[in-house]
Amino acid sequence: MTTVAAYAAPAAKAPLERTTIERREVGEFDVLIDIKFAGICHSDIHQAREGWGEAIFPMVPGHEIAGVVSEVGSGVTRFKVGDRVGVGCMVDSCRECENCKAGLEQYCLKGMIGTYNALDKNGEPTYGGYSEKIVVDENYTVRIPDGLSLDVAAPLLCAGITTYSPLRHWNAGPGKKVAVVGLGGLGHMAVKLAHAMGAEVTVLSQSLRKKEDGLKLGADHYYATSDPKTFEELRGTFDLIVSTVSAPLDFGAFLSLLKTDGALVNVGAPEEPISLNLFSVISGRKTLAGSGIGGIRETQEMLDFCAEHRIGAEIELIGASEINDAYERVLNSDVRYRFVIDAATI
Amino acid sequence: MTTVAAYAAPAAKAPLERTTIERREVGEFDVLIDIKFAGICHSDIHQAREGWGEAIFPMVPGHEIAGVVSEVGSGVTRFKVGDRVGVGCMVDSCRECENCKAGLEQYCLKGMIGTYNALDKNGEPTYGGYSEKIVVDENYTVRIPDGLSLDVAAPLLCAGITTYSPLRHWNAGPGKKVAVVGLGGLGHMAVKLAHAMGAEVTVLSQSLRKKEDGLKLGADHYYATSDPKTFEELRGTFDLIVSTVSAPLDFGAFLSLLKTDGALVNVGAPEEPISLNLFSVISGRKTLAGSGIGGIRETQEMLDFCAEHRIGAEIELIGASEINDAYERVLNSDVRYRFVIDAATI
Repeated sequence: MTTVAAYAAPAAKAPLERTTIERREVGEFDVLIDIKFAGICHSDIHQAREGWGEAIFPMVPGHEIAGVVSEVGSGVTRFKVGDRVGVGCMVDSCRECENCKAGLEQYCLKGMIGTYNALDKNGEPTYGGYSEKIVVDENYTVRIPDGLSLDVAAPLLCAGITTYSPLRHWNAGPGKKVAVVGLGGLGHMAVKLAHAMGAEVTVLSQSLRKKEDGLKLGADHYYATSDPKTFEELRGTFDLIVSTVSAPLDFGAFLSLLKTDGALVNVGAPEEPISLNLFSVISGRKTLAGSGIGGIRETQEMLDFCAEHRIGAEIELIGASEINDAYERVLNSDVRYRFVIDAATI
Repeated sequence: MTTVAAYAAPAAKAPLERTTIERREVGEFDVLIDIKFAGICHSDIHQAREGWGEAIFPMVPGHEIAGVVSEVGSGVTRFKVGDRVGVGCMVDSCRECENCKAGLEQYCLKGMIGTYNALDKNGEPTYGGYSEKIVVDENYTVRIPDGLSLDVAAPLLCAGITTYSPLRHWNAGPGKKVAVVGLGGLGHMAVKLAHAMGAEVTVLSQSLRKKEDGLKLGADHYYATSDPKTFEELRGTFDLIVSTVSAPLDFGAFLSLLKTDGALVNVGAPEEPISLNLFSVISGRKTLAGSGIGGIRETQEMLDFCAEHRIGAEIELIGASEINDAYERVLNSDVRYRFVIDAATI
């Protein structure tokens, strides 16, 4: 066991504070990663505050991890010391079910093992990226290509793959009209990725406050959803809408913006159930769907795509002592567009 | 104009009574159809009672029409006097939008013109199948193949196509596990059709009351949804669930029965909004979708498929004077499985 510094929430809704945790010994197929950067995801806050249900404390959040390999187990073949690597939302899964075998480990039928707020196969709690080091099985570690700086790559491990996967699955690309609801951490990645895939991209945001940013990020159009005219003007426009917000939407109104056979895919997750009139999907054979992160293979594909297209997250780099303030600012949508913790300050 | 006998609701929620209506002159592209049989669809009742919103009265319901052509307009090329034909839920659409051009007239961007409770292109109210005769454009008329009796064919025009279309669209077939929720007018057709397509079919009904019927109709398995064990046992089982009920379901529970990437498609339509926790679709990238009837081309394809596979509806033939009683029995799920009015009794 190795003792490493970390930032943890000692209990639900308590502020995070500096502490130490134990990392397991580097096993045969493990890599030890010196964490360089860790992104702050809205879901870190959901979980640290038990918005998604009972959680495990103390909790070290962080599932957008970028770092450098500093040790490898004897059986490791995919990485060597010095490699630049990333870890996302999961650190293991059953590896045997049809989903794991298909590269959809995030939908493991026995449940993936989360990077934090989970129990590993030995029943030990997992601790996330707000820490100095982490030990991860090489099969749940991905390579960060040379073209990507580690700081702007960190958020790709969740915000990137969470938006990349549904954009690919629902065929965003040339000739397709894609709308992105919300221009936050996930939304700004969705805009960059959909644009790079060749789709015509529209941002649907509450206000026009971030319009200039949105267009710079690659959006072709930008509309305020607080303006009822938006819903009249864009009726029946989109092949795909990716909703990145965790606030409950007027789903009927957003579904009306889809073409026949269009899909509204949720990657943001409101804590409360939503209300939906089924006629909204029956007229026009529409789909309301969801998508959760992506598999390991697809995460690597996404990083390679990002390197090829020179896509990183837009980040605000902070020291670890600023985490609690950053949480408040995330809740107020006051970040453009992702906080990233400099792990050297932990 | 031709005066014909019909059964109509004079006002919302009023009993239907015998009356006369005017049918338009047979135009250049019209066929005059002597109606032989008209099915009673749950949506007739929804509309006659304004459950789906304000309606047009007097209302002659009926959009499951089977009859024989008795006159054709000078420009008609597809039908001749004596042909056995059907008319479903629509009698016209804009014919110019991308959906109409794609054979998806039911999703016409200007709105299809319903067989009843609608206004035609001249602003005249449309009247449905509970009548002696109807005049319909040949492009919205389909052929009933010789192998199908007109009485059991009538319900195919709505119950048949409404279930056939999503089964095809979501690829029901060999190797696929399909569940049908509800064994009523729509559900019993869904079972027959999915079975004929080669899928493994499970009925999910409130109770086991109709189990014997369900298995005879082609179901491989039959479960009661009132039994909580059903949801444990069938967790993650289905590629496709077609819900034919208009009662609101526990959608989270039904979505849990889908495999990863599975779809729950609603062809029944509860009058009230449903409640849905989006995690139900995010875990397993699932789809909640809807589907409305089918296009004209697909309706013909469905009738040909039914003739090939010797599929008709299971019906209870009634006289027109029994319509109001039949409505009550439909509301009590007391029909196996579709009431069909013998139009000779109108």
